[in-house]
Amino acid sequence: MNPHQFSELEIDAVYRAIRERRDMRHFESTPIEPEQLARLIEAAHLGPSVGFMQPWRFIRIVNPELRRKIHGHVEEERILTAQALSQRSDEFMKLKVEGILACAELLVVGLIDKRDAYVFGRRTMPEMDLASASCAIQNFWLAARAEGIGVGWVSIFDPVQLRRLCNMPDGSQPIAILCVGHVKEFYPRPMLETTGWDRRRALNEIVYEDGWGGADGNSLPCNKENS
Amino acid sequence: MNPHQFSELEIDAVYRAIRERRDMRHFESTPIEPEQLARLIEAAHLGPSVGFMQPWRFIRIVNPELRRKIHGHVEEERILTAQALSQRSDEFMKLKVEGILACAELLVVGLIDKRDAYVFGRRTMPEMDLASASCAIQNFWLAARAEGIGVGWVSIFDPVQLRRLCNMPDGSQPIAILCVGHVKEFYPRPMLETTGWDRRRALNEIVYEDGWGGADGNSLPCNKENS
Repeated sequence: MNPHQFSELEIDAVYRAIRERRDMRHFESTPIEPEQLARLIEAAHLGPSVGFMQPWRFIRIVNPELRRKIHGHVEEERILTAQALSQRSDEFMKLKVEGILACAELLVVGLIDKRDAYVFGRRTMPEMDLASASCAIQNFWLAARAEGIGVGWVSIFDPVQLRRLCNMPDGSQPIAILCVGHVKEFYPRPMLETTGWDRRRALNEIVYEDGWGGADGNSLPCNKENS
Repeated sequence: MNPHQFSELEIDAVYRAIRERRDMRHFESTPIEPEQLARLIEAAHLGPSVGFMQPWRFIRIVNPELRRKIHGHVEEERILTAQALSQRSDEFMKLKVEGILACAELLVVGLIDKRDAYVFGRRTMPEMDLASASCAIQNFWLAARAEGIGVGWVSIFDPVQLRRLCNMPDGSQPIAILCVGHVKEFYPRPMLETTGWDRRRALNEIVYEDGWGGADGNSLPCNKENS
């Protein structure tokens, strides 16, 4: 018996949040209490960070005009992405790719400027700041799911233009537009899976042993079916 | 009442995992059941991914010789990092920065090669593959914490050399060495906080409104104390 493990019910709750979290694109207009939003940001802020640099900043968008500008920019980029996808653009255009105007709260998440000052754990891997901030966002996402709040991470934007819109300094880097809000229902499966965009890999396709490729001979009991 | 929210006990469990997760560097030698490791990787695999690309692969290191080589490489890089930190290298050399030889299970996490084929959500933000894989690792980390298993994300390595050690193809990218195992106790606070390396920012320092900088006038109820 491991003395550090949570109770069975608690363990199940953590796995439930992981399993039922979805990248949401459809929102209800019901507002979110500021205390609840602060709680979710605090969960993010408890994320791990390389060299304890805490590189994340959360910009809450409350000005409706700024929200419309961000939406306009993402709409332009969505069309450019559809064109770049060429033969798949029809499928793509049918998908709803953001919920910027509909969601209760809109956040832009950015990495701080002057990140070069942080060397610990980043000397050969400077991109670990993004990795840290992504872990923080995953905390936010899971806490939100437990609280019954939907989150969508929109990455269809030009970082230079979004930086300008949000008055972010040179050297800082927007990494996410988070749509946050109540939802009518959580998708039972990822939207891109349901629509047949791609399938979830089986576990034995993503686990290797002592080198790249082939799970044959892998000693882990990996389910060979899609899960 | 939000019909999608978990029970109070479940919500508390998710927040507890978020609060008590630690980047661990000290491990016991007790083995981990393969089923348990597979469960944690499955939690990772339920992470979000841009365009549903599932860019992550997990290499389980079972060959002791390979583990020693990885440890040797990280040790070299640790010394180079200490030199690069110059005036802070004394502090740094006192910190234990990895648990590669001691942990029960060692994983190298990598991004797949041929990622350019994935355009959806990455046209202007190609680094979203790393963001996705980081969210997956955060899932792994939180599930492990709930199960009482410690995880340390080591990023002190040269990606080119680690790729070679693990026989990874050109275009793939190692992003993490994960030390996974039983621990005597979880640190009560992040090790870099306890040792005075840096302090945790107060919430009002990381939340802005409608633009960068200054939380003055922020309408969120952000705690101004360190938490």
